[in-house]
Parts: sequence; C-alpha cells; structure tokens
Amino acid sequence: MKRIAILGSTGSIGRSTLSVAESYPERFEIIALAAGSNLEAAFEQSRRWRPRLVSMAVEPDADRLRARLKQAGLGDVDVVYGAAGTVKVATHPEVDFVVSAIVGVAGLEATYEAVKAGKTVGVANKECLVAAGELITAEARRQGKPLLPIDSEHNAVHQCLRGGRMEEVERIWLTASGGPFMNTPRSDFSSITVEQALNHPTWKMGKRITIDSATLMNKGFEVIEACRLFHMPPAKVEVLVHPQSTIHSMVEFIDGSILAQFSVTDMRLPILYALTYPERIQSDMRFPVGNLRHLDFSPTDMNKFPCLRLAYEAAEAGGAKTVALNAADEVAVAAFLEGRIGFDDIPRVIESAVSASNCRKLGSIAEVLEADAEARRYAQEWVSAMQKQAAQPRATSVV
Amino acid sequence: MKRIAILGSTGSIGRSTLSVAESYPERFEIIALAAGSNLEAAFEQSRRWRPRLVSMAVEPDADRLRARLKQAGLGDVDVVYGAAGTVKVATHPEVDFVVSAIVGVAGLEATYEAVKAGKTVGVANKECLVAAGELITAEARRQGKPLLPIDSEHNAVHQCLRGGRMEEVERIWLTASGGPFMNTPRSDFSSITVEQALNHPTWKMGKRITIDSATLMNKGFEVIEACRLFHMPPAKVEVLVHPQSTIHSMVEFIDGSILAQFSVTDMRLPILYALTYPERIQSDMRFPVGNLRHLDFSPTDMNKFPCLRLAYEAAEAGGAKTVALNAADEVAVAAFLEGRIGFDDIPRVIESAVSASNCRKLGSIAEVLEADAEARRYAQEWVSAMQKQAAQPRATSVV
Repeated sequence: MKRIAILGSTGSIGRSTLSVAESYPERFEIIALAAGSNLEAAFEQSRRWRPRLVSMAVEPDADRLRARLKQAGLGDVDVVYGAAGTVKVATHPEVDFVVSAIVGVAGLEATYEAVKAGKTVGVANKECLVAAGELITAEARRQGKPLLPIDSEHNAVHQCLRGGRMEEVERIWLTASGGPFMNTPRSDFSSITVEQALNHPTWKMGKRITIDSATLMNKGFEVIEACRLFHMPPAKVEVLVHPQSTIHSMVEFIDGSILAQFSVTDMRLPILYALTYPERIQSDMRFPVGNLRHLDFSPTDMNKFPCLRLAYEAAEAGGAKTVALNAADEVAVAAFLEGRIGFDDIPRVIESAVSASNCRKLGSIAEVLEADAEARRYAQEWVSAMQKQAAQPRATSVV
Repeated sequence: MKRIAILGSTGSIGRSTLSVAESYPERFEIIALAAGSNLEAAFEQSRRWRPRLVSMAVEPDADRLRARLKQAGLGDVDVVYGAAGTVKVATHPEVDFVVSAIVGVAGLEATYEAVKAGKTVGVANKECLVAAGELITAEARRQGKPLLPIDSEHNAVHQCLRGGRMEEVERIWLTASGGPFMNTPRSDFSSITVEQALNHPTWKMGKRITIDSATLMNKGFEVIEACRLFHMPPAKVEVLVHPQSTIHSMVEFIDGSILAQFSVTDMRLPILYALTYPERIQSDMRFPVGNLRHLDFSPTDMNKFPCLRLAYEAAEAGGAKTVALNAADEVAVAAFLEGRIGFDDIPRVIESAVSASNCRKLGSIAEVLEADAEARRYAQEWVSAMQKQAAQPRATSVV
C-alpha cells in the first residue's frame, strides 16, 4: 500500500492522481491533501478519501471546511491552512509519496520540505525544476530518493533511460508539438493576436501554457527541467518538432541506439508510472499501435523562437537566471494576454529580465522566491516602458 | 577483455563482428573462428587475428590452411575441420562469447554445444531459434546465461524490454518493411515473376531472404524467434508494416507505455550491443535524429500473405512444426527461384509440409535435423507433384 499526499489536489493533476488511486484501491491510500481555495472540491475529496489531513490556502476556508466535515461526521480529518499547512501535508509522517502539483512558485517550499523529509516525490510543478531545480535535485540526491517526473515528456525520458546507464546517454530528444506558428513567417510575428496565439492546434490547456507553447518557451522550460532532473548539460538536450505528439520523447545512447516512448495522451499514465515505479501495473490506457499510420518530425528554429534560445542560455548559466526566465515569462505572457505588449515583445521582456539577473547559486527556497520577486518587478517595469514606447508610433499611425 | 569465437567468420555477420572487434582492440580478443569453405578469407582472418583455433568445413581445406599458415610463420594456429571442428570452436575453453552466424541448420549443433558449455551466445542464425529454439532457449535458461539477438528487430526488442520486467510486457511489435508486394492485389500474386520478387524496395540481401521478405515468411520466422527468445505466446507478438524500417521494433507494457528502438541500419550496432551487454559503449554509428522527417505504418494482411499465418500456427503448435516450416520454405523458395513453382505456390508447399509434420517436442539437435530432413523430402515431393499438375493446364493453354 503506497501512502500518498497531493499538493494541489483540486487542480488537473491532483484530480487525475485521485482518479488513478480510485482505479487501484488495493494499492494506494490518500493520506493528505493540499486543496487550495476550492472549498467545495476540498469537501468532496475529503468525504470521498477520508485523508488524515487537509490544507486550505487561507484560514477562513479551513474553518469552513472543518465545520462542514464535522457536520458530515468526519470531524477526525485534521484541517490546516497556508504555506505551513501545505508543508504539513508534504511532510506528513505516514506519507511515502508526494505528488507536487501546485501551480507556480507557491509549491516550492512544500516540495523541497517533502524531499528533505525523505519522501519520494512525483513532480508535476514546472517551477520545482526550472526555478528551484538545482536545490531540489541536489537534496533528492542527498536523500537517495528518486524525483519522478509527472509530465509526458520527462516521464518518457525516464522510461527510455532504463535502456542504459546515465553515463551511456549521448543526448535527450524532447519532442514538441510546435504550436500554432511553426509555419508562420517570422516577419508576421509582431502582428500575432491573442486569439491566434490561444488557438493551439492540438491541446486545450490553460492560457499561460498555451502561449508558452506558441512561443516554445514551454519547451524551453522542459529543456531546463530535463537538465536538472537527469543531470545533463543543455547541449545534450535537444528539441525536435513532432506535430502529432505521439512520441513523447527519446533518449539517444552512446552506441547509437535511440529509444522512444509513446502512449495515449492521458496524464494518468505518467502519474501511474510515477506512483508504481519501479513496477508497472496493468492499466486500460491502451494506445492502438496497430492503427499507427504517420509520424512527422521537423527541426526547431531558435531564430524564429527566441524564447527557446533564452531557455538554453539560462539553463547553461543556472542560478537565478532560470528563476528570472520563469518569472519574466509569466509577467510577459500576462501582459500579452492583456493586450499591453505584442507577441514578439514576450522574448524581449524575458531577455532583459534574465540579463539583469545574476547566475549566483541559490542556497534556499527563500532566495529563490526573492530572485523570483525581483525578476517580476524588473519585467513589469519593462512592460510599462514598452507600452509607453509603443504608444508613440501607434498614435502616429492613427494620424 | 571479452574473448570471442565466431561461427561463420567469413560470412556477412562474421565479417561485421571482426570489424567491430577491430574498432575496440582493447575490449575484444578473437580466440576461435569457424570459417567454412572460403580458404582465402580464412587465411587472411587467421593472419590478421591470430586466433588459437580455426575450423574449415572440410579436411582438404584445413590441410591447405595449415600449410599456408605454417609458411607464413603462424604454425601455432590450430586448424581443425567439419562439424566436430565447429563444435571445438564453439566450446573452446578460453572463449566467453560465441557469435552464432553459420547460415542454415549446419550451425545448430555447435550453437547448442556453446550454450551447454556455459558460453554467452549472440544469435544471428535464424534456425537456432526457429528450428531448435525450444531446445536452445531451455538450455540457456538452465545455464543462466543470456541469448543475445544479433538482428535489428530482436535486438531492438531486447533493448526496449529493459524498460520493464518480463511479466510487465503486454505485447511485442515487430516492424516489417513489407516487401515489394504490399500494394499488389492478391489476385496478381500467381503471376509474380522471380525478377519482381527479387526486387526488394529497401534491402539488398541474399536470394532466399529476399523472397522470404516478399512472402513475409521472414517476418513469420521473426515472430517465432521472438516467441522463443522472449518466452512470449504468439498471440503477444504482432507485426506492423513500417516501410522506412527506421523503428526496428517496439515493446508495449501493461501500463500502456510503448518503447520503440531505432538506429542506423548497420549490423555492427546489434553486434556491438550483444558483445558489450549489459554495457553500452561509444560508437560512430550515429542516426541523425534531427533529420527525422516521416515514419509510416500500416497493418499486415495475413490473407494476402499466408506465410505469416503459417508461421503463427507453427509457433503456436511448436515442436517439429517450426522445423518443417523453415525446411519447407527453403525448398519452396529454391523451387520458385528455379521457375518450378509459382510465387503463390510457396505457401502451399509449406502448408502441406507443416501439416504433415507433428508437434512432438524435439529432445536433441539430432531429432531436429531428422525432422528437418523429413520436411525437406516431403516438400520436394510436393514441388514435383505441383510441377506435374501445372504441366497439364499449361499444355492446354498453349493449344
């Protein structure tokens, strides 16, 4: 019986994890949930799973949840709140496996504490590896516990890596759907609208990740994640465009063999893999291999997609640079979605913020959060400056 | 230092093995060679590699080689001959690894003796697994030594299997180039000429294997080899047509993940893999992953290619059936190449010979060879009978 805590239980990955646990009641027990601000979902999950501990984002929600659970005869569920509450969930003594799926830097501290407490952690939160990757992977190595990736690309890499030893790896190949602008000429990038950028050809996702897919910054983050997770230099992590997204990623070995992983596109599969690793167990998620027809691939163009180049540079430099990359991207994407800057301004904002940051090694999550806040401020200032500049020629063109 | 014996050193796989050994002089030592009837090549290989022992097919060649080696100041190379000589090479006490690459049933006894002597064996000879697979794999299990496949498909499967445990395997997917008649209507099969059948779209190979590729019997043999090597029931081994032959094969796991292997098409790669397993070492055989563009797949049609169906049935029945399948195919293909029977008579000859054989378990290589000879006689008789029958309507149509 594996005893699980979920950080971000009401989000998409959290709900998928519970759905996996539901399919294998004899294997998984839900011990603790960090549920955020969705009170109704937190109540339903508590009633269904009867965890020992639930954490809400704020105290009033915790009070309300406690009252409702008491009313429902579930007064033995311990309800806590805030950052300290999330850490309690992540480090609960009865927990073996922690799913880290809180979006943004909010999940960093609890994830780091889970690793420090010797838990096996399944990582679905990008910031854990992009912003705090050096810190968290070093601690996991110290603990001798695996960090198991819960996203299709890195999970695929993890599976392919079983074909050899780490020192036998020549290169990691991450596949990328390519986003909506693979065939758009670079010269048209300045006029890309929010609607066009949100119209991803294959995936329906949140707004930020959809824009990050259109700029290839999402793939850039994945390059950094691969470097941190698998201790690879950025030069050994490459990106190949594969519009069908059937093959989730590949590993090339020094003898010239390449292993590729594919499966249905269902987050429950990497979750199940992480939860049961090193075992595999039967699932109903069958890819119809016999129906396979065409797989297409093409190279990436870093001149056209400067966000990808910026990610490689930040991965190489390390330290606060990757923190700034993530923070500035969040600011720039928000500004683009609000119509404050153009599509091709996104990499400009990020580049300036990353240049302004330094590559000092960050020694604690507090330092990561400080670098994050600093980069956000810087990026916001840049966005404002750009808007002022842009107001000039726009006014002219109206006249 | 791995000490190697090669059964079939002057053939294609034998020469590729020596080429691999040449690239890594610090890793591999050539101890013994079974060279067959190519005296000149045997002499050159002996001079280059200075093995302890060389075996020729017949005594006069052994005498000649011995004399030439003495003349060249290499009188310390021991020269033997015949089936007993091949067994001496296969079981030489200084040898760790035996490459089994003698074509046909001639290599069976020596390969079996190598396994019995506790050697690790790299199998490139089809008959070892199709005709004597039950016997040889059972002995390898008894010895606790791996049988390492030296052909691109099974080598790919072996690599993909590292992604999980054997009991976690749902299915093996062998890829097939499909041969020249994938798009030829079944109704045209009776008029296929020898030239058409020898015109394989992707590979230049020997005549028998080219015809076996055109009938898909070659893939049928590979299904049987996969069943024997990996202890899988035939129902769990499937064939997928993949004209580019980039992906060499795939393994589907019970959780729904599929691993696929690809690489350049160079026999030295599976040879190197087998020779260094469980290690991988650096090679210059790089597949240009970044240049990958299109991979196509399509299903196989057993009604159109009855040889594939016959192979599945023989694999299921086991015993002398798979011996008969191989023996009758060799006879039928030779008869087709000589213009004695038509292309679509090939499966008819094989089906009759397999039906006539029984599925008794064969307890020794001698019994395998006996079943082989019996099936050949039966198939020859069928070919003759078919010719007589065919003479009738042909005479009529001339009138």
